[in-house]
Amino acid sequence: MALAAAMIAVASLVLFSVMSCSCHAVGGGGGGRLPPTLTRQYYEAGGQKISGAGGVPAKVQYETRYFTQRLDHFNAAPASYGTFQQRYLVNATFWGGKAAPVFVYAGNEGDVELFTNNTGFMWDVAPRFRAMLVFIEHRYYGQSMPFGGSKEAAYSNASATGYLTSTQAIADFAELILSLKANLTAPAAPVVVFGGSYGGMLAAWMRMKYPHIVMGAVASSAPILGFYGLSDPYSFYNVVSNDFKNESEHCYDVLRSSWKELDEALATDQGRARLNHTFNMCKGNVDAIPNLLENALVYVAMTDYPTPSSFLTSLPAYPVREICRAIDHPSSGKDTLSLVKDVMTIYYNNTGELACFGGGGDEDPYGMFAGWNWQACTEMILTMSYGVSNSSIFPPDPFNFTDILAGCRDYTGLPPRPYWIEAHFGGFDIGNVLKRSASNIIFFNGLRDPWSSGGVLKSISESIIALVEPQGAHHVDLRFSSKEDPDWLVQVRRKEMRIIARWLRQYYSDEAISS
Amino acid sequence: MALAAAMIAVASLVLFSVMSCSCHAVGGGGGGRLPPTLTRQYYEAGGQKISGAGGVPAKVQYETRYFTQRLDHFNAAPASYGTFQQRYLVNATFWGGKAAPVFVYAGNEGDVELFTNNTGFMWDVAPRFRAMLVFIEHRYYGQSMPFGGSKEAAYSNASATGYLTSTQAIADFAELILSLKANLTAPAAPVVVFGGSYGGMLAAWMRMKYPHIVMGAVASSAPILGFYGLSDPYSFYNVVSNDFKNESEHCYDVLRSSWKELDEALATDQGRARLNHTFNMCKGNVDAIPNLLENALVYVAMTDYPTPSSFLTSLPAYPVREICRAIDHPSSGKDTLSLVKDVMTIYYNNTGELACFGGGGDEDPYGMFAGWNWQACTEMILTMSYGVSNSSIFPPDPFNFTDILAGCRDYTGLPPRPYWIEAHFGGFDIGNVLKRSASNIIFFNGLRDPWSSGGVLKSISESIIALVEPQGAHHVDLRFSSKEDPDWLVQVRRKEMRIIARWLRQYYSDEAISS
Repeated sequence: MALAAAMIAVASLVLFSVMSCSCHAVGGGGGGRLPPTLTRQYYEAGGQKISGAGGVPAKVQYETRYFTQRLDHFNAAPASYGTFQQRYLVNATFWGGKAAPVFVYAGNEGDVELFTNNTGFMWDVAPRFRAMLVFIEHRYYGQSMPFGGSKEAAYSNASATGYLTSTQAIADFAELILSLKANLTAPAAPVVVFGGSYGGMLAAWMRMKYPHIVMGAVASSAPILGFYGLSDPYSFYNVVSNDFKNESEHCYDVLRSSWKELDEALATDQGRARLNHTFNMCKGNVDAIPNLLENALVYVAMTDYPTPSSFLTSLPAYPVREICRAIDHPSSGKDTLSLVKDVMTIYYNNTGELACFGGGGDEDPYGMFAGWNWQACTEMILTMSYGVSNSSIFPPDPFNFTDILAGCRDYTGLPPRPYWIEAHFGGFDIGNVLKRSASNIIFFNGLRDPWSSGGVLKSISESIIALVEPQGAHHVDLRFSSKEDPDWLVQVRRKEMRIIARWLRQYYSDEAISS
Repeated sequence: MALAAAMIAVASLVLFSVMSCSCHAVGGGGGGRLPPTLTRQYYEAGGQKISGAGGVPAKVQYETRYFTQRLDHFNAAPASYGTFQQRYLVNATFWGGKAAPVFVYAGNEGDVELFTNNTGFMWDVAPRFRAMLVFIEHRYYGQSMPFGGSKEAAYSNASATGYLTSTQAIADFAELILSLKANLTAPAAPVVVFGGSYGGMLAAWMRMKYPHIVMGAVASSAPILGFYGLSDPYSFYNVVSNDFKNESEHCYDVLRSSWKELDEALATDQGRARLNHTFNMCKGNVDAIPNLLENALVYVAMTDYPTPSSFLTSLPAYPVREICRAIDHPSSGKDTLSLVKDVMTIYYNNTGELACFGGGGDEDPYGMFAGWNWQACTEMILTMSYGVSNSSIFPPDPFNFTDILAGCRDYTGLPPRPYWIEAHFGGFDIGNVLKRSASNIIFFNGLRDPWSSGGVLKSISESIIALVEPQGAHHVDLRFSSKEDPDWLVQVRRKEMRIIARWLRQYYSDEAISS
């Protein structure tokens, strides 16, 4: 069985859409591999918007502001002078004034409140650094919609959506920060940019491209090497598989074998009845089971956090371990389908409140999919997340670049640009390049995170530092600290704070500012 | 008298248009200062295209190639996928192959053959470095016209011309170089980018923004600090004035007083008759004299080379000295108007072949003006070249930023973006920024060159080096060497070669390539 239908796993805090599909299962467009359409998501299992109340500490308080942003920074065609209102959130409670630092979050593909409420590290350390916090929403997400402010208009056609690119987004950040500092009459205030996942890529790239505007970057779980030719196209799914395999060989074997059993059951009326009985699918939609299962496995690998999390779904600490524990020590039936059902329960119904699986709900409460699918098929073609190897817990799916590009072309109606990101931001021979032409970047990666395989895993210089944690998951360092945090996580955050403090000391010394 | 009419001085090799005008003299648009329109040029004094034959050494041999370039690199609107043919010229005679260097000239605002034929330094040093030479034409100049290849179409309206920006041009270079190296299967070949004046700005910015593509930059006479707030808006004309004043106080006084005399003569029939008799103007067009004089004075300051030059016009060695010599030791009449005529003779009729002054001819043989005027009024607003101080040899013209911007708005029909270049490329606090985030740039400046006042005049680090020559003019280092070159010029070129050689050694060491 190939991976069923187009699938997108949305990860917490910084949210990459993992797109993968079989060619023949859905649609069957001529291009072979399908475009990344949105299909049944884990949200169907009862997803609901959680931000704001519940789980967000009281100290998360901010003022909402808007900046009049230019539509296109890089050409002077009259249409480019159009503007839109870019949202950003500010907390100046802790700010030491004028020469004190400004910590900027480089918003990624979703409502900026999501990142504001969940980038705990910035809130935790702001008082110590007397830092102003600024969270900037990425264009074409949340409320920051060009072409009049409505999502419908911004996504109405390629001519409107075409201004959704990473280079424009980074230039937005640059212009907004310059304006903010001018309004504060704080030209000397050092700016450190933070980001996780795609936002982490933007943060790192921003330090590379706009070093005169941001004096340092904390790029957490940023797969800037996830593009064609820079990393193994099978690596994403290999990491997911290894996360489970390292937990237990039996767990790995059961998961591997589950797809065949699901396929066989789905092929007969008797089997479907059995699935319906076992899984208690909403509206009897047993066909959704493989997608829901894959989504769960990918997502728990990304968010295999050491403490319970409740970001997009409620999860126990170390959910990969919990899943393998459920498989290795089953509470009820020991047949594979019952085990798979237990896996899905951990992921989709950890709180026990769900009446049935696959019941719908808002599929995209943070408004990510339309934008990210567009980005992922025009320039952000992260090939590292497409191939599924024969030894995977997932059904094998050989990497086929041609098919991916054809699928993307079908999806957007435009030729994909798979080499542009590397042409513009680099990646090849990154160590030798950056050690001579950049500084002040932290690349954090947790090796349980499948995206880590596209990350910078070796320090490049004294100030371009890779922090790599074998037990870490997707931008775990940026989460709120907790008393239950393991020591390695406490230490990672301390290291990050020490490095940032060192950057600031050097900056004040360079500028002859007494801090 | 205010400076008469809009004026553009075109400098050799890399050609900045100096725009300056009085508000009331021409047009009289509501915005106060006029837009930079093209008016009488020095070409009227008999300018003719000199490139190719005569003055260009026989070793200048190249193959003309074309690269299919994307219209807009930074957005994904369908129109951006349009392409055009970008011309580039290649000489591979000296290339050592695969790991040997590629020296790229970052084409500026004109026909690329002009730069190819006149950037002698690259031709002179190519054999020693076993370097391939590549001269890339800047979009919207020469033959590299978007929208079908005709200049008429490319400049037909703002929607077509809008893709003429520095960021697009640099991205063009990046894409072309990557493609060239891929076609050569020489991924490890180090690329050094060269440029003079605007091309020098592009070269420096390219090393800053695309360090993964070019490993070093020779930025000659590149006024990257010529923008608002970064340099004195009177500095350009101050340098011109000082060039003459330093030669002789008498010379300075005569030139200063000439405008009043010209104005008074132009005001009466008797005076005009006298001017016509003295100057021998073509078609009796005595009104052109002030412009022609100012053009000559600006241009000789820029090209005050130590050896005779024959780039756009034939000039003696150290033409500023020659002009002051003619003023201080007149051959014929000693009245100011006769002296001014002698000045114009040196500049416009050094060869003695001109029948009369101001006789027309091709005003724009290298196709620079339409493009540069557009650029200079949209984003490349080099404020350093607008104000004329009271102590200038030119009629004072107070710097008025509002008027400049209003004039530009009138000219292009679009709001100028005077802060964009600094937002994107930086400039403020450049030393502290670049010492931490860039490397391998040579900034050459000759202090006789008025553009030097917008240049980087202090070394920033061990590898970002300012070479400053008090006797130097506009990118004199990039000219062909000559037996008559003064020792300082010989030494500057030697220093540049040594620095480039050091970059290459370090590169080969980093890459573990035995060179």
